[in-house]
Amino acid sequence: MSEAQSPFPNSKKVYEGDLRVPFREISLADGEPPLRVYDTTGPAPRDGALPPRRAAWTAEREARGDTNFSQMHYARRGEITPEMRFVALRERVSPEFVRDEIAAGRAILPANRKHPELEPMIIGRNFLVKVNANIGNSAVVSSVDEEVEKMRWAVRWGADTVMDLSTGPDIHETREAILRNAPVPVGTVPIYQALEKVGGKPEKLCLSAFLDTLEEQAEQGVDYFTIHAGVLLRYIPLTANRLTGIVSRGGSILAKWCLAHHRENFLYTGFEEICALMKRYDVSFSLGDGLRPGSIRDANDAAQFAELDTLGELTEVAWRHDVQVMIEGPGHVPLHLIRENVERQREVCHDAPFYTLGPLTTDIAPGYDHITSGIGAALIGSFGTAMLCYVTPKEHLGLPNKDDVKTGVITYKIAAHAADLAKGHPGAQDRDDALSKARFEFRWEDQFNLSLDPDTARAFHDETLPAEGAKRAHFCSMCGPAFCSMKITEDVRALAKERGLSAEEAAAEAMAAKAEEFRARGGRLYLPTV
Amino acid sequence: MSEAQSPFPNSKKVYEGDLRVPFREISLADGEPPLRVYDTTGPAPRDGALPPRRAAWTAEREARGDTNFSQMHYARRGEITPEMRFVALRERVSPEFVRDEIAAGRAILPANRKHPELEPMIIGRNFLVKVNANIGNSAVVSSVDEEVEKMRWAVRWGADTVMDLSTGPDIHETREAILRNAPVPVGTVPIYQALEKVGGKPEKLCLSAFLDTLEEQAEQGVDYFTIHAGVLLRYIPLTANRLTGIVSRGGSILAKWCLAHHRENFLYTGFEEICALMKRYDVSFSLGDGLRPGSIRDANDAAQFAELDTLGELTEVAWRHDVQVMIEGPGHVPLHLIRENVERQREVCHDAPFYTLGPLTTDIAPGYDHITSGIGAALIGSFGTAMLCYVTPKEHLGLPNKDDVKTGVITYKIAAHAADLAKGHPGAQDRDDALSKARFEFRWEDQFNLSLDPDTARAFHDETLPAEGAKRAHFCSMCGPAFCSMKITEDVRALAKERGLSAEEAAAEAMAAKAEEFRARGGRLYLPTV
Repeated sequence: MSEAQSPFPNSKKVYEGDLRVPFREISLADGEPPLRVYDTTGPAPRDGALPPRRAAWTAEREARGDTNFSQMHYARRGEITPEMRFVALRERVSPEFVRDEIAAGRAILPANRKHPELEPMIIGRNFLVKVNANIGNSAVVSSVDEEVEKMRWAVRWGADTVMDLSTGPDIHETREAILRNAPVPVGTVPIYQALEKVGGKPEKLCLSAFLDTLEEQAEQGVDYFTIHAGVLLRYIPLTANRLTGIVSRGGSILAKWCLAHHRENFLYTGFEEICALMKRYDVSFSLGDGLRPGSIRDANDAAQFAELDTLGELTEVAWRHDVQVMIEGPGHVPLHLIRENVERQREVCHDAPFYTLGPLTTDIAPGYDHITSGIGAALIGSFGTAMLCYVTPKEHLGLPNKDDVKTGVITYKIAAHAADLAKGHPGAQDRDDALSKARFEFRWEDQFNLSLDPDTARAFHDETLPAEGAKRAHFCSMCGPAFCSMKITEDVRALAKERGLSAEEAAAEAMAAKAEEFRARGGRLYLPTV
Repeated sequence: MSEAQSPFPNSKKVYEGDLRVPFREISLADGEPPLRVYDTTGPAPRDGALPPRRAAWTAEREARGDTNFSQMHYARRGEITPEMRFVALRERVSPEFVRDEIAAGRAILPANRKHPELEPMIIGRNFLVKVNANIGNSAVVSSVDEEVEKMRWAVRWGADTVMDLSTGPDIHETREAILRNAPVPVGTVPIYQALEKVGGKPEKLCLSAFLDTLEEQAEQGVDYFTIHAGVLLRYIPLTANRLTGIVSRGGSILAKWCLAHHRENFLYTGFEEICALMKRYDVSFSLGDGLRPGSIRDANDAAQFAELDTLGELTEVAWRHDVQVMIEGPGHVPLHLIRENVERQREVCHDAPFYTLGPLTTDIAPGYDHITSGIGAALIGSFGTAMLCYVTPKEHLGLPNKDDVKTGVITYKIAAHAADLAKGHPGAQDRDDALSKARFEFRWEDQFNLSLDPDTARAFHDETLPAEGAKRAHFCSMCGPAFCSMKITEDVRALAKERGLSAEEAAAEAMAAKAEEFRARGGRLYLPTV
């Protein structure tokens, strides 16, 4: 068992319903009810791969001779698939609601029929905000096994999808190993592999070679493709006055192609053919923002919004094929310009889910871009962005290692959860309340176990107070053992309960009594040492 | 020289004007103009203390027999003090603007006349957003020297003020050593020491003993005091139904006192006497939010806002004495409730500067509360909060060490700067633009040196590409040496310049030409390895 698969403390997997939808149940002390949390980690692998949970569902569709396997297609015909029922239980909503959101294009359920290991999940503004983690090897570093472990590591800490951005020589084998072990949807940017196939020369790219690559990846089970079909020839000049030009790798490959041929982007002109392929597998579009801003200065400019308009146009084309679509967004955007991104995207892309990278809210902190972008991610999530692509501390500086992956995922789980709270998502606050109650009641172990990263919380506590007894003590290292600022409320509340009064009345009465009691007890507020 | 005093790379201190206002000037390569950034680090110490820069200014006031030394007092008389001129240069505004903001109470210039080592700074919504770092020993850990080094370390990374929250036995000596070495304003929570003086028994606290403590600390040069005068007896019952009660240490000490005596808070009833003392030194009020929420559930509740109303009332009292005031704020607040905090504070406290702790936007990530709160801090700063009190990764778990102090300060510099950008603060974007330009032009050294933490940026880059040559190379580890997504814009722009056309026209023309040139060059996009 790898490090990524070690169990969380005081937690067990539980399953709900006939589809056995997984949750993680955290047991608590002192008779507190256990808390069930959304769980992405998937089942234990068998013989180097996950069990093919969806195999029977997709086999049935294939047997009956379906030609469009898209969840949107089924939803629009009124059908509730097992995938939709699975998602409904995960999100605590009705299956009908899931179906209707998918049918309307407001949510996508990325689930290639060739990815049977998948535990279905949904991406849409009316569901929990999701987090994507980018992994992938490069020509320089890492093996297939390392990438699988990195994927598991990302998923352990809560990544809802992963994108495999590999570019090295083992690109097919790496993707295969990731897919066969991924309980979450896997996305790719197929132009990277297509480019490898034409010897790294963008001008040699063409639609048919690109479609071959899509087919290869779709057959493996990739659940969504980033396609930069909105980088139009006429938009490229709009980037000339930018501070940082074109910063999307895919975007600049396509720009280079357009310049080389002085012709329109072949992904745009061949978009219907791409749609025809996507629906045969139910691969979802992640329409790429090849002209996203790469600096604060370039945020919300003409190039960015021109491309967005085209993505909106393409959304309608994809929807005519019942192909699912989400829209990628920036990038680098200062706080006051974030809202406009969401509002414009929503309007021009007809409510298709928005999927943003960050955005970074300042450019001055390389080494901390998980934070500069986590700020933007929380805000854009609170405005309705459906999925947040993480940024690690290595952004702009190098390739993330395993520690960076964890830091990136945790930071983005924070951002996504802060957004869920702000959106008033039903039940989102349960975990906050359980943890704060544990904190208030000095249930240290519960506080650790309820946190996003129990290991770190425990380690930080132990730095100051390592003794086991300290974890049952009614104090912490900040205020000392004999007094804590939370204690007084316990007293006030206990009295209220005892008298059976309304809390306010009781508390008012309590004060008079407390004055006596406190003088009588004569307790010292601080003790000099622990 | 301590680690905290080692110079930043490619940087030198420069001084402007007759008052020798310090900046840090970062030299750049390739003929780029150097960038001057706000600098908090102060001069080099002599004989274990900083030079008493302000001694002559305050001596003059003492000699002429002033009795109210508050900067607000001078401002309201129309006087522009050297402190105001100093601040004006630092903030790139006129001295008259500084004076008028202080006179109106919209900004404070915390500068005890007994703290001559101070380099004046200003806190107000129309100035750069500031960051406070809490330091201070406890009964358990750290020496005087360690605390001085921690203060220097915080200031090195950009802390604009520090609060000394020491509670141990060497409380007076620690504070003395910090003040004599602090180029930034120092704040304290005097109730902590007052409590020590009465044997740790809150019910034994009284106004006269408290005033003695204030006098002792004011004589040492403390620049602002947190005073929890808004914790009124009648507000305590409002906390009874809270999930986490009273979480402010000062707040609960006062609540305990009120309960013990069943009398009104002596800081409230004795507030005018406190004001009389403050103005003799020009100590500023930081009116404490003793009833701030300690969890998402308790945010924006009746107890919190009742206390805020009282802080507004006390602001008017202080202003009648020309004593400077800022208002402390929460705490734990979900994203969608943050704006209300700023708007209410502004209204009921008559535009007195707001100074908030975070706020934390979720409770579920102990170990990462610099991030949960950095998100809230950026947002509340963008709404006009004048100073942000940092939160370190150890929040709720233990006392911060030096690494935690650095992480906390950098996170909050990011939040403050993101807020400055959002507010459109003049010149704030210069550093972003310079860094992004360096990034675009592959000036790696400049990118590191312009960042908030050059050491970390360089170390992260070196993990993948350690060779010295890589720092002059036109590539990074993400995309390889032969191609970079930024390169294409360079080409488009170069052509525009060459032709003397408008960038848009030229770029349009360029595309046709590029098609030829690119095919002719036939460059491979990727090289297989670095």
